[in-house]
Order: sequence, then structure tokens, then C-alpha cells
Amino acid sequence: MPLAKSLIDEFAQIAGKDSVMTDEADLASYSYDAAVLEPVMPALVVRPKTLESLGRVTRLCNENGLPLTVRGAGTNLSGGVIPARELGVVVLTNALTRIVSINTEDLYAVVEPGVVTAKFAAAAAERGLFYPPDPGSQAVSTLGGNVAENAGGLRGLKYGVTKDYVMGLSFFDVDGQLVKTGGRTVKCVTGYNLAGLLVGSEGTLGVFGEIILKLVPPPAAAKAMMAVFDTMDAASQAVAAIIAAKIVPATLEIMDNFTIRTVEDFSHAGLPTGAQALLLIEVDGHAAMVAEDADKVETICKRQGASSIKVAKDAAERNKVWEARRAALSALARVAPTTVLEDATVPRSQIPAMMRALLDIAAKYSLTIGTFGHAGDGNLHPTILTDKRDHAAWKKVEAAIDEIFYAALKLGGTLSGEHGIGLAKSRWLEKETSRGTILYSKKIKAALDPKSILNPGKIIGA
Amino acid sequence: MPLAKSLIDEFAQIAGKDSVMTDEADLASYSYDAAVLEPVMPALVVRPKTLESLGRVTRLCNENGLPLTVRGAGTNLSGGVIPARELGVVVLTNALTRIVSINTEDLYAVVEPGVVTAKFAAAAAERGLFYPPDPGSQAVSTLGGNVAENAGGLRGLKYGVTKDYVMGLSFFDVDGQLVKTGGRTVKCVTGYNLAGLLVGSEGTLGVFGEIILKLVPPPAAAKAMMAVFDTMDAASQAVAAIIAAKIVPATLEIMDNFTIRTVEDFSHAGLPTGAQALLLIEVDGHAAMVAEDADKVETICKRQGASSIKVAKDAAERNKVWEARRAALSALARVAPTTVLEDATVPRSQIPAMMRALLDIAAKYSLTIGTFGHAGDGNLHPTILTDKRDHAAWKKVEAAIDEIFYAALKLGGTLSGEHGIGLAKSRWLEKETSRGTILYSKKIKAALDPKSILNPGKIIGA
Repeated sequence: MPLAKSLIDEFAQIAGKDSVMTDEADLASYSYDAAVLEPVMPALVVRPKTLESLGRVTRLCNENGLPLTVRGAGTNLSGGVIPARELGVVVLTNALTRIVSINTEDLYAVVEPGVVTAKFAAAAAERGLFYPPDPGSQAVSTLGGNVAENAGGLRGLKYGVTKDYVMGLSFFDVDGQLVKTGGRTVKCVTGYNLAGLLVGSEGTLGVFGEIILKLVPPPAAAKAMMAVFDTMDAASQAVAAIIAAKIVPATLEIMDNFTIRTVEDFSHAGLPTGAQALLLIEVDGHAAMVAEDADKVETICKRQGASSIKVAKDAAERNKVWEARRAALSALARVAPTTVLEDATVPRSQIPAMMRALLDIAAKYSLTIGTFGHAGDGNLHPTILTDKRDHAAWKKVEAAIDEIFYAALKLGGTLSGEHGIGLAKSRWLEKETSRGTILYSKKIKAALDPKSILNPGKIIGA
Repeated sequence: MPLAKSLIDEFAQIAGKDSVMTDEADLASYSYDAAVLEPVMPALVVRPKTLESLGRVTRLCNENGLPLTVRGAGTNLSGGVIPARELGVVVLTNALTRIVSINTEDLYAVVEPGVVTAKFAAAAAERGLFYPPDPGSQAVSTLGGNVAENAGGLRGLKYGVTKDYVMGLSFFDVDGQLVKTGGRTVKCVTGYNLAGLLVGSEGTLGVFGEIILKLVPPPAAAKAMMAVFDTMDAASQAVAAIIAAKIVPATLEIMDNFTIRTVEDFSHAGLPTGAQALLLIEVDGHAAMVAEDADKVETICKRQGASSIKVAKDAAERNKVWEARRAALSALARVAPTTVLEDATVPRSQIPAMMRALLDIAAKYSLTIGTFGHAGDGNLHPTILTDKRDHAAWKKVEAAIDEIFYAALKLGGTLSGEHGIGLAKSRWLEKETSRGTILYSKKIKAALDPKSILNPGKIIGA
């Protein structure tokens, strides 16, 4: 059903005529995200150029009962920015890209939601500061999207995730009223921690205005290493041993043989394609600590059976390895028509057990599962390569995904470490939490969004 | 109005007869906390011995419309555990003191809400791990209370506050249904971040069951220093300069002359009573970094005019200084009948301006205000010494408190860095946030607690 012309005009009045799209081709561009789910065509796409008009768009949607999905870069992996089935309005944030301020004395920044993550990190770096959260899609993802999904990344182990950097937030409630929470100080307990609630709420509880992000001094030194293993088990035992030795690497990534070969084929970074498993490790901090930690990591890897360990000679060599790692998803996605990237996460000591479970599941369903991920924080990315058009194959994939989740929960882990629940995983939510959790969440949602127009269906279902 | 005998019996059936108190003397013990507010006698005090009975007590209160205030150690400084005016039930957590597990491989612990903070930190230390949050009252405060208040402490600057350590939480909703949120992994985005919302919610949204807390490897080395200044201004400039130099001390405390003299009189720690201001600084981490940071801090302090800097020779000397600092509130409290400890917080670069504002306010109202606090995170504790029984004096105190809040907000700060809003500051909340924030918060509260029995009146008022 198309939107009434008069309503479209109202959106145009608020956001500007050039900011409202209703062409089939435009609508199609915003009908999907990076999750393997059916696209849904929105009825309208609007691109506010100011925060004020963003608030007014929100209010207009609510007044007219139009379901509203805010979209950053659309890199979501759980269907979080797929519009609603009827009369969905997609609100783009890519005109809201102001870095309002970077405060070098008090170590924070104020940004609009459409600022691209990597651009922001670079701007902070130029001012001598460090914004650690680095989701895989950081080159294009937006900070608003990162906050909505509580995005993780490669540095979660040492530096935490997006929520650890959100000091404050202003957002529009469903009526377009401005809500402010948190502030510019490290300590702030004034009122409910609404920023905490909004982080990871996937656009279902409010529409972000300005975001206040914490910055930290950058590490003085860093060292990147690559450890080669003959078995996945040895590599994952090494991960657990590094953490147990109380070393906290900035990054601690794992890659299985299938991923190594696929990435090397794609990026030609010089990865050892014969290795059964790789650990990519970076330690950072004071130079003396970095040197010692690197030595300890090397010793532990050797003790766990690493056949070789290579230390990056310089920044260029270091970047090459990380770029290869970041290319993992793109590389895997080339192999088969459909790429299902999961992010089941387990306590780090359970990584060896989870890796074995993944091998068993792949064998049981005769599936190709490439596994890589943030081993240091237990956040693995088993990636199933398949073809969704093949009905029989897809049935097996669905069964395998179920088993992957079961395995993670059984090991004390979680459904989703960093991709969110979105549309893809909401049916699993109660399994991990409780009936009480769902009811409590639904009460919050119903109270704050009685018409259910804020990104409906995400997280807790319809 | 007393509770019906039959209802008291129901509490006794759930929690055990010896766990229900209705004696005047018992009730009086739980009628107040550490805030300067009128005591309110509860109708009943109950002390559940199991989490299961805690849930049942919650449900019984809701069924009978009895306002429920959960109380840890009662060290609250904003009236957060003062019971409701009519038929208030105080629920003690001091029988729920189990440290369920400390996981040294995955760096987390599971605790019941009544575990004493310092006891828990010591238990973690015994297992070679570190729990950084150290509110001033840690020797008696409980972890449940810390989570309810999002307690801060001396290490906020480098290590963050309680919310940064809450990985997961189970809690009872008002019906006694168990809600689970978060988990045992560093990354977890499964469902709403209810743990984020519950942290700092002052008992108004649920009753905590098990708390999952993050632990970290302890720093390898630490060095404590005391820098003596001739003016408060020089000391506060030094604070800003240390942070601007990208040094992140574990602790960076300030004390004015009045506080120094009062603390020394109380604790005989050897503080220089002639100093106009002291900075107490601890840097920690790798030994090489600690040595360098300590040198840099010394250089900066001297450049800012420190007349002397003393480095603690050993752990004993170091502990002596920190114990003296921790005694500040107790010491000040001896001086006058009424001690009003505030915690207005500003961005760290604004500390010199805030210090000047405090001096002006003290002069304007002829008040004795001793100021100390966590300078490194902008969290000052101006402490007004007065006598509440003196009506004229108290009027001046109230006016001064108003001005302190205005000054903090004007400098980009917040009403409360770590003490919470409770009953004491709710009338100020809208000033810092917005009307929209209050309405949004009230909607959440009404949806989750329709009879308003969970610690009513706190944070957002009645």
C-alpha cells in the first residue's frame, strides 16, 4: 500500500523535498541489510538534514502510525534495519554527519548519529586520542548504528564494546520529545541510566540525536603477531592459556584453515594457507609491557604447539595482516551464493569446546562452515556458506544454526555477542533469558511506544 | 498504621519467623540512611535468607500494595533507602552474602546482593584478580547497593564505576518473576540491556538476585604520591594538567586545607596541616610505565607550583595515606552536628573553576565547606558542616546547595557523580535533563511497577 500523497508532502515539508524518496529503485535499496532475510520494501525513505527535523519526522510517523526504521549504513547482520511490512518509513542518518566537538582536555566527543565509525576514529586520532570500538564494518558503519546495536569488534577483550564508550545521549522519544541522559563526566548517576537502556535497543525505544562518546589516550606502543597451528584445538587452547596467564591483548583473533585459504585467495596478504589455524594477536600499551607481553604470548603459543610465530616488522606489515582479517567476511561471501555469519559467543575458556562443537555440527549436516572471530572475548563467527535457493540445503543450515545456539548456551554463552537479535534471533531470546525477561522487555516497549512504530518486530518480536 | 497480623505472618512464613522484625527499636534502625533527611519508620523489616524467598517477599509486597525498600548497608547518601511513608517494608539483603563463584579463567564472579564490597574485592584478590570499584564505604557497603546506586569511588578515572563491571544480572520484577539480563561473556547483545537500565535505578525497577561482575588482572605495580600545594587553584590546575598530558592515574584525589586539618586530627596519618591543598595520586600498571608516569606527574605538579612531593616508600606508607583519605567523611562528620556531603561533578578541565565557585559560595553564605574528592574524574565532595536544628543556618545551607548544583551544571557537569538522586535531588533532575527525560522515565516506572511499590519516590519523585 502506498503512502497518501498528502503525507509524503508533510515529510517533504519537514525534511526538504530532495530528502524524500518514493521511487521503486530507491525503496529497493533500503529493503534489506546484511542479514540473510527476505527484503521488505519500505513505503518511503526520508533523509533528515538536521536533528530538529529528525525529531519532527519521528513525531509525524507516530501521529500517523507509520512504522519507522532508522538506518545508518545498513551493515546490520540480524535484520535490524529491514523495514516493517506495511507502510514502513526508512529514516536515513547519512546527512547527520557532524562531529560536533572533540574535547581533548576532558576526553570525550559529541557526534551526530550518521558519522562513519572509521572517520570518527581518524578524527580522534588526529587530536591525539583513541576511539577503540572497531566493528568489522567500521569503514562504512555509523556511530548511531554502532550504538543501536552495541557493536563490538576486534578490540572488545581489552577495550570493551560500544556501550563502554557511550557517556551520554540525547534521543527523541516516539512523540519527538527530546530525552537527555548521561553527560560529559566519567561519573554521572543523575536519573535512570537511559543511555544504558538505549544502547543495543536496535532503534526500538527512541531515535538518537547527539551521542557523547568517551575517548582514551592511545597506547604508546603495539606489536602484532601471527601464530601458526597444526590443529584448531591447539590454537584455541592457546587462546585460553593466554587469558589465563592474565595477559590482555588488544586483539586476539582466530581463523580456521578454510577461512585462511579463502582470505588469502582474496587478499594475498601472505597468510600460510597450509596452517590448520592461525592466531592473530596484538598487544599494546607501554613499550616495556608490550615487549614482555609479546614474549609471554610467544612462549605460550609455542608451548601449545604453534609451529611458527611471526612478529610484524612494522606498521605496514601489521596493517596488512589486520586488513586481511577484516576481509574475512567479504572473502567468504565470494565463495557461495549465501553467507550466514553467526556470532554465538562463549566464555573464553570454552572456546576449545565450542570449536569442537562447530566441527561436529558441520560434519553432521555436511556443511561448509568457516570459523573465525574474536577468540579473546569468546566471540566466534562460524560462517556457513550455502545457497538459500536450495531448499534442502537451507533446511540443514537452519538446523545447524539451531545447534550452534544450543551449543553456545550449553557452554554458558550467548546467542549474540555483537550482531544483535533483530529479526533473525528473536525467537531464541526466551531460551537464553526467561519468560520474565520477555514480559519485562515488552512492558518497557509498550509503555514507550504504544503504537509500536519504532522499528517494530526487532529484538522481542511483534 | 501498623501492618495486619495476618500479613506479618505471611512474611514470616516466607522468610522465617526470626527474619521478620516489627519492634520499635528494630524499625528505628532502618528508618534512615547517611543522607541528611528526616527518618521514616518502616512498618516491617524482613531479612530473606534465600533468593527464592526474596522473590516471594517482593511478590507479597506487590499483592498487598506494600512499598518495598531493599537495603544493603544503608550507607546511601541521597536517601535512597529511606522507607516509604505508609506501610513501608524494608527488605535487608545482609543474609544474602554468598559469593557463588569466582571464575579465574573467564574473569568474572557471581555474587548475591548482600556481599560486602571489600570482602568481595579481597576474595577476588586471593584468587589473583582485581575488582576495581571502591566506593568510600566499601568496608561495609554491599555489592547490591553498589549496583543499585552505580557506586563510584577513588578509581573511577582509570577503571570506571560499578556499571562498567556488571556483566549480567538476574532480578525479580514486581510480581516476583525472575528476569535475566546479560551474561558471562564480555560481549553479549542478547535482548535489551536491562542490566544497564537496572544499574543505578535505586531499587525502583526490580529486586536484584544474582549479580555477575567482571574482574580484571591486577596491575603489576603501583606508586602512591602526595603533592603539597600553597593554593587550591594550583592543585586543581595540576589535576587538569595531568589529564591533559594523557596520564591516567588509578587515583587522583584532592583535599583542601580544612579537610587536611580535620583528617589529620582524626587519623594522625602525618598529613601536612599547613598545606592549602593536597593531591593524593596513585599510578599503577606495568612497572616501567608506573615509574615513567610517576616522574611525569612529579614534573607536572612541580611546574604547577607544588612545594613538595612525597612518594610512598612501601605498601604500609601507601595504605596509611589512602586510609586517611578514606577517613575524610568520618573526620569531617565529627566537627559539626550535621554533615552534608555533596557530589556535584564537572568535566575535569573545569575543576579549577568549580573549586573557585565553591569558595565563593562558602564566602557568600558564611558556611564551612570542606572540599575533597575524586579530582581525576571531576567528582568533588564539597562537605558542608552545619547544624540542621539551627533554622537560619539550614536555610543558608539549602541556598548554598542550590548554588553548588547551578555551578556544576553551568560548567557542563552533573548533579550527582556517584551518590544517586534518591529523595534528596529528584526536584533537580529536570534542570539537568529535560521534561522529556522525566516523562520517559516515568513511563518506564509506571509500566514496570504499576502500583509504585518498588522504593517509591526515589529518582523521579512520587
